Amino acid sequence: MHIHPTDNPDMDTRIDSLGEAKIESPIINELNGSSIDIFKEDTDTILIELTPEKVADTINSGKTPASFELAGPRKKIFFDPSKLKCALVTCGGLCPGLNNIIRSVVLELYYSYGVRHIYGIRYGLQGFIPEYKHDVMELSPANVVDIHEMGGSILGSSRGPQDIETTVDCLERMNIGILFMIGGDGTLMAASKIEDTIRRRDLKISVIVIPKTIDNDIHMVSKSFGFDTAVDISTEAIKGAHKEAEGYPNGIGLIKLMGRYSGFIAATATLAQQDVNFVLIPEIDFDLEGKNGLLTKLEERLAQRKHAVILLAEGAGQKFFESRKIEYDPSGNIKLHDIGLFLKEKIQSYFEAKNMDIPLKYIDPSYMIRSLPANSNDHVFCTFLGRDAVHAGIAGKTNMIIGFWNDHFVHVPVPMTAGKRKQVSPGGKLWQTVLEATGQGSLVNS
Amino acid sequence: MHIHPTDNPDMDTRIDSLGEAKIESPIINELNGSSIDIFKEDTDTILIELTPEKVADTINSGKTPASFELAGPRKKIFFDPSKLKCALVTCGGLCPGLNNIIRSVVLELYYSYGVRHIYGIRYGLQGFIPEYKHDVMELSPANVVDIHEMGGSILGSSRGPQDIETTVDCLERMNIGILFMIGGDGTLMAASKIEDTIRRRDLKISVIVIPKTIDNDIHMVSKSFGFDTAVDISTEAIKGAHKEAEGYPNGIGLIKLMGRYSGFIAATATLAQQDVNFVLIPEIDFDLEGKNGLLTKLEERLAQRKHAVILLAEGAGQKFFESRKIEYDPSGNIKLHDIGLFLKEKIQSYFEAKNMDIPLKYIDPSYMIRSLPANSNDHVFCTFLGRDAVHAGIAGKTNMIIGFWNDHFVHVPVPMTAGKRKQVSPGGKLWQTVLEATGQGSLVNS
Amino acid sequence: MHIHPTDNPDMDTRIDSLGEAKIESPIINELNGSSIDIFKEDTDTILIELTPEKVADTINSGKTPASFELAGPRKKIFFDPSKLKCALVTCGGLCPGLNNIIRSVVLELYYSYGVRHIYGIRYGLQGFIPEYKHDVMELSPANVVDIHEMGGSILGSSRGPQDIETTVDCLERMNIGILFMIGGDGTLMAASKIEDTIRRRDLKISVIVIPKTIDNDIHMVSKSFGFDTAVDISTEAIKGAHKEAEGYPNGIGLIKLMGRYSGFIAATATLAQQDVNFVLIPEIDFDLEGKNGLLTKLEERLAQRKHAVILLAEGAGQKFFESRKIEYDPSGNIKLHDIGLFLKEKIQSYFEAKNMDIPLKYIDPSYMIRSLPANSNDHVFCTFLGRDAVHAGIAGKTNMIIGFWNDHFVHVPVPMTAGKRKQVSPGGKLWQTVLEATGQGSLVNS
Amino acid sequence: MHIHPTDNPDMDTRIDSLGEAKIESPIINELNGSSIDIFKEDTDTILIELTPEKVADTINSGKTPASFELAGPRKKIFFDPSKLKCALVTCGGLCPGLNNIIRSVVLELYYSYGVRHIYGIRYGLQGFIPEYKHDVMELSPANVVDIHEMGGSILGSSRGPQDIETTVDCLERMNIGILFMIGGDGTLMAASKIEDTIRRRDLKISVIVIPKTIDNDIHMVSKSFGFDTAVDISTEAIKGAHKEAEGYPNGIGLIKLMGRYSGFIAATATLAQQDVNFVLIPEIDFDLEGKNGLLTKLEERLAQRKHAVILLAEGAGQKFFESRKIEYDPSGNIKLHDIGLFLKEKIQSYFEAKNMDIPLKYIDPSYMIRSLPANSNDHVFCTFLGRDAVHAGIAGKTNMIIGFWNDHFVHVPVPMTAGKRKQVSPGGKLWQTVLEATGQGSLVNS
Repeated sequence: MHIHPTDNPDMDTRIDSLGEAKIESPIINELNGSSIDIFKEDTDTILIELTPEKVADTINSGKTPASFELAGPRKKIFFDPSKLKCALVTCGGLCPGLNNIIRSVVLELYYSYGVRHIYGIRYGLQGFIPEYKHDVMELSPANVVDIHEMGGSILGSSRGPQDIETTVDCLERMNIGILFMIGGDGTLMAASKIEDTIRRRDLKISVIVIPKTIDNDIHMVSKSFGFDTAVDISTEAIKGAHKEAEGYPNGIGLIKLMGRYSGFIAATATLAQQDVNFVLIPEIDFDLEGKNGLLTKLEERLAQRKHAVILLAEGAGQKFFESRKIEYDPSGNIKLHDIGLFLKEKIQSYFEAKNMDIPLKYIDPSYMIRSLPANSNDHVFCTFLGRDAVHAGIAGKTNMIIGFWNDHFVHVPVPMTAGKRKQVSPGGKLWQTVLEATGQGSLVNS
Repeated sequence: MHIHPTDNPDMDTRIDSLGEAKIESPIINELNGSSIDIFKEDTDTILIELTPEKVADTINSGKTPASFELAGPRKKIFFDPSKLKCALVTCGGLCPGLNNIIRSVVLELYYSYGVRHIYGIRYGLQGFIPEYKHDVMELSPANVVDIHEMGGSILGSSRGPQDIETTVDCLERMNIGILFMIGGDGTLMAASKIEDTIRRRDLKISVIVIPKTIDNDIHMVSKSFGFDTAVDISTEAIKGAHKEAEGYPNGIGLIKLMGRYSGFIAATATLAQQDVNFVLIPEIDFDLEGKNGLLTKLEERLAQRKHAVILLAEGAGQKFFESRKIEYDPSGNIKLHDIGLFLKEKIQSYFEAKNMDIPLKYIDPSYMIRSLPANSNDHVFCTFLGRDAVHAGIAGKTNMIIGFWNDHFVHVPVPMTAGKRKQVSPGGKLWQTVLEATGQGSLVNS
Repeated sequence: MHIHPTDNPDMDTRIDSLGEAKIESPIINELNGSSIDIFKEDTDTILIELTPEKVADTINSGKTPASFELAGPRKKIFFDPSKLKCALVTCGGLCPGLNNIIRSVVLELYYSYGVRHIYGIRYGLQGFIPEYKHDVMELSPANVVDIHEMGGSILGSSRGPQDIETTVDCLERMNIGILFMIGGDGTLMAASKIEDTIRRRDLKISVIVIPKTIDNDIHMVSKSFGFDTAVDISTEAIKGAHKEAEGYPNGIGLIKLMGRYSGFIAATATLAQQDVNFVLIPEIDFDLEGKNGLLTKLEERLAQRKHAVILLAEGAGQKFFESRKIEYDPSGNIKLHDIGLFLKEKIQSYFEAKNMDIPLKYIDPSYMIRSLPANSNDHVFCTFLGRDAVHAGIAGKTNMIIGFWNDHFVHVPVPMTAGKRKQVSPGGKLWQTVLEATGQGSLVNS
Repeated sequence: MHIHPTDNPDMDTRIDSLGEAKIESPIINELNGSSIDIFKEDTDTILIELTPEKVADTINSGKTPASFELAGPRKKIFFDPSKLKCALVTCGGLCPGLNNIIRSVVLELYYSYGVRHIYGIRYGLQGFIPEYKHDVMELSPANVVDIHEMGGSILGSSRGPQDIETTVDCLERMNIGILFMIGGDGTLMAASKIEDTIRRRDLKISVIVIPKTIDNDIHMVSKSFGFDTAVDISTEAIKGAHKEAEGYPNGIGLIKLMGRYSGFIAATATLAQQDVNFVLIPEIDFDLEGKNGLLTKLEERLAQRKHAVILLAEGAGQKFFESRKIEYDPSGNIKLHDIGLFLKEKIQSYFEAKNMDIPLKYIDPSYMIRSLPANSNDHVFCTFLGRDAVHAGIAGKTNMIIGFWNDHFVHVPVPMTAGKRKQVSPGGKLWQTVLEATGQGSLVNS
């Protein structure tokens, strides 16, 4: 097996492979009697950088500008579909679209390539570990065809790491050729370690990750599945908070949404339902007290308009907890302090001290959002992700994710994206438009 | 003005009146050239009791069985529409359908009767009190025609009583003929006192209440507006909780819904989305500990099925707080202790003590439900309620609510319903079907 | 077997029975250690008539006022659940709620009574006839638990009658004890004939019908399943038509809805989405030409408001086709002439003759409505209908439907309802409120 | 005024300008006390071509690869907001999102730049022509803030061209500085002519087009507003057709969707609701008769699966009407022959000839889709489009559209896109995935 050496230390986008793909793809390259060109070659790539000057500089300095391999079917495949066994696993928190991807992977394996042995690993990485005694689920078109109508994951999930050697033992024992992992940052880490162990044992197992993050914060991936659905449903919470706020004199609606390190959901939902007056996200600092602080600004808003809506990403304002001790959840993530309840109390005691009656309604819709079925947009997106994951895996590619960049589905090496994170840029179009839509201005004292 | 003496002490259903209605109704009693009989007489009534034996017994003993006046237009009206001024006020918590009723009252007054002076009192009973300085809102078809598309109340609301004399001063000063009050039990109490003051001052003001209770617990009213919408949306929370529970080994979904004293929403939502394993409502006792207690039953359920969904009405299990001191909210209601957070902690510590990892997701969608626009069913229902309220008020009736009984819109005297409450019957069809749907059985130790 | 003689020729509401119910019901009549009274007796009835005077007259003249048996579980049952075989069949056009009823019947038979042999007959009455070769579908909780999320009928349906003797042969051959039929007027006719044949052959087979009519026009049934969902979705078509009409100068939106002989859907949808200017239903005559005719009124409306929305029930205006020959569909119903396309052309040629450019948009959403999943309200309603059908059948009752009257689920004899029809009353509350909401007035020339 | 000469004849992407922008933008370029870089320069561009080889070739041959100017606020603006008057007009067929764009343009003009004179032109280009007597609508935040909740266009629309000189007379008379046109291909043509006339008269009027096409077929624009909503709602029609088809033996569901020349909606909806067996779009040929023809394939499908769903774009199969005469609609578009009704009849007569009873249900939801409010995704998209249109216009740019390319909002010259059209590529990812999802294969005889 060939592992690409790193010739561009900054950005190596080449995809690892299990070996030469020698088998003719069973996919038909013809329509209405004419041959059509549906196969992608590994040399079909798209530029990562879009700025003409930067690209020209790279080229003029004799280098090749970085580009991503396009996802899609290959003319030659590595695995023999009639003998191939595949496994799917969904890890971490629920996210709209999990079932859609399971469905898409299974249908593509079954109908396009003729693979007949597809196994669902139950309850995330736990499913690989014998002591949990979770059964394996056999997957076929018959039992996945309608699952996209339901939220959640038919395989179930779990948080936290599991022993890597035991996991690979299981893959070996089951004789798996391709492992499809659907999960977030922790899963990318696990995938990387599984990959290492597979390589060390010299096994012919491909690991393909379909990145999952309801926060839309995966590095080098412009859009992740479930995000559109999450924004869509978040608007219902905003509407509710707005009507509750408007409904009473000096009413306040306070909503907490997902967003541990990145405020994409909160910022986008603010644009999708423009009833929000203050949006607080992890990327943008804010003070509570003082002339510019949230509490003063809130009081001013109430004086002018008699109601206010505040939208929080769960990771906002963590600076207020700096003195408290750090705890970790089973996935190894730092446990966030609850900024929602914190703010609720701060606001209430601020106005109590001023003897103002402030009806504050607190809404936390997170678990109603995560468990929903994907909307149409995400369903289409998941269809492509799942099918491209199959094309990549069966062609013998490994240690990669299916990404989306410059409006194209692409192959991104796991090491390029794991452990990094996309964030809302303060000067960017999204946040600027949020500022225009809310009129909140600066919330920091100089 | 004639106030009916009470000839049947158990159930006096006669409606108070401001005096004889002498003006011809402007509503046209004709269609396609033929006269049609659209007017109701005060003698058009429906039986309250449906059991033939009981009705026969009453009749055979020479008495008249109790019946409700049918709502609807009267041939003669009391007020002269060209001179009439009306006021609307919405009180207490938000509920789907408030705007629909405002709209319906305004359109009926304006188009059917030609009333041109309709005032919206802002922020509930506060709007009558000068010191709050809430402006009055002039209402006309142009500014209400689309309000049913939005949740909340365009008038706003507030909780808690206000001074009755000051309120009636305001009605006098504004020269109001009909006051339409949309509110719950507290509003019925206030209406009763306003009525008394009006009578004492010998004013010609009609007070018509459209009863509002998202809990559907008004005595002698079989169905209240907003309830169908509330159930509808509650199913989304149940779906979410179910998928979150299924999504992890030993996952638990815990949902808290409205229902202070009556579990109609929780029970009906359980039938509307049959993913619930345990429903807890104020009317049905349950234990936590012991062989039949919820915690044991929950553990058994997890052992068998690996996940569970629990649905709570907010008023369930208040016995667990008996030792704590009683507090009151601004409306004078006893502040309920938070059974949701209480149960969440009890469950978590129970399983922690057993060293079991139990992913519990807690969902409280109340403020997303209360502030929603009414669904089609409630919109139609509110249309009838609002129009019948107008017919009653303009005919000079007073001290009454628009009720719904045996599938008919009826007039119910305020004293007959205020301060009483409908509850889920343990042996009735609703709860029995809930028990069949959940299989939860008894949760009380003998 | 006892067939009730007719002692009240006008209204015999007694229910036929297969014989004495001798077996103890397995349903537990106890909660939290106390016995609760969940069983209904056949003598538990509710009055049909609600007018006190009429009821008193009947009683005073020494007669018993007509009443319906209440639906619900009986203490003693006729069939031995361990040996019982049941069949379900869905007939005629699709209607939201079919799957909900199938689900509810199966769950009740299985869990409450322990019945293990439940068969789904495919494609309506065709499924009984060998030559069609439709397989029977075995039904159990596992394969019905999620079907209510989907529209349509998992059993499929078909139109038109089938041979009765062959049908009963099939029931005999399969050894069916209870046949649950879900269908409309044609199905009631078929049920009646099947019942006669069963009695003639002296078989112990119960026939229970759950009446289906998206038009809500079943005689002696105040509400039928699927109607609420149909109204709900119809509002989307009205919104669309309204926006299309408003969108262009002199724009017209024309919508055709269900309603062969009764305009309940069109009238109720008009109240649920009050954007309609003209509603045309089978019960209310209208002219096209002349001073009061629709075309003149439409022109006046356009002159005043620049747009108009017209809502048609499919059975409206059939008088315009009187000269054409009568055709029948496979169910034996008269084929309606297409009033929608007829009106579309009439309107267009009327305004063309006046040289007016009239952008008319025609919307027929019928097949998007019929095939939808039931909404929450209908799901709860279907849950009760299905469970009550089981209680009735297993108690040995037959030749009856599960009806809904005065807000209660009741048993109604098939002969009392078959072949009759409920209609919108011109002077009633529904149509009067429609006239107020549309302002359309009379559309007939004197 | 400077009009860029064409230095790259193939692709001139430079944007015309009314002159030098000399006024400081009032938009604040600072957050939380730090300056942030929110302004775009005209030299901030993105590459159009993403293939590294092609870009390298261009650069290595000494040329500059084509790129689009990025949309967004400019540091200097051309118009003085305090004196600026703006006009908005919506043209052609309705499309979800029209109101969102109107709202976004008005809010941006008003709040970000302080423009106080914003006029809505009623009923499309008709609104400029005195003889139609359509009033102008004054637009301000108060009357647009909630319009995105409604479908349609508050301005109304109309089809067809109007006299260009009269139109520009109106702009002159009203003293308009920026004209925002929201419309499709016909509007691009009109914009081009209006632009020419403005230049000829040497007026300082900017013309900014926000391209509207529910078919998503605008050349050089990767995604147009309303498309996501249209796909979303189309899935409801597919579900309905599927359930109706499944509901009867040999049932067929036939749906006609939008798509005059491009099948993007039909193809994408097929992936969003994967119940379709045959998709027919303008870009892909199909036969009716013969071994590979649709009718034969349909018969085979019915034999195997007993039901089928067919989804049509309105522009598919126009070859079957070649002998008929060509007609034009008021917009000057060729009137398409109705392939939906044509196919319906062909299918029915084909199976009638074979004596098969085929229940075919025909669904045309087009006017329910076009008039809907935009979903969240489209609302966010429209927010950006409207605001970027304002930034461009106020900076003095003209003769351009706000486009979307490689995931960025960009400026595209009108001449570059008018009169051209994007189509579904037979070998591309979309159509290939459709073929996999439907399994329909070739429908053309060799």
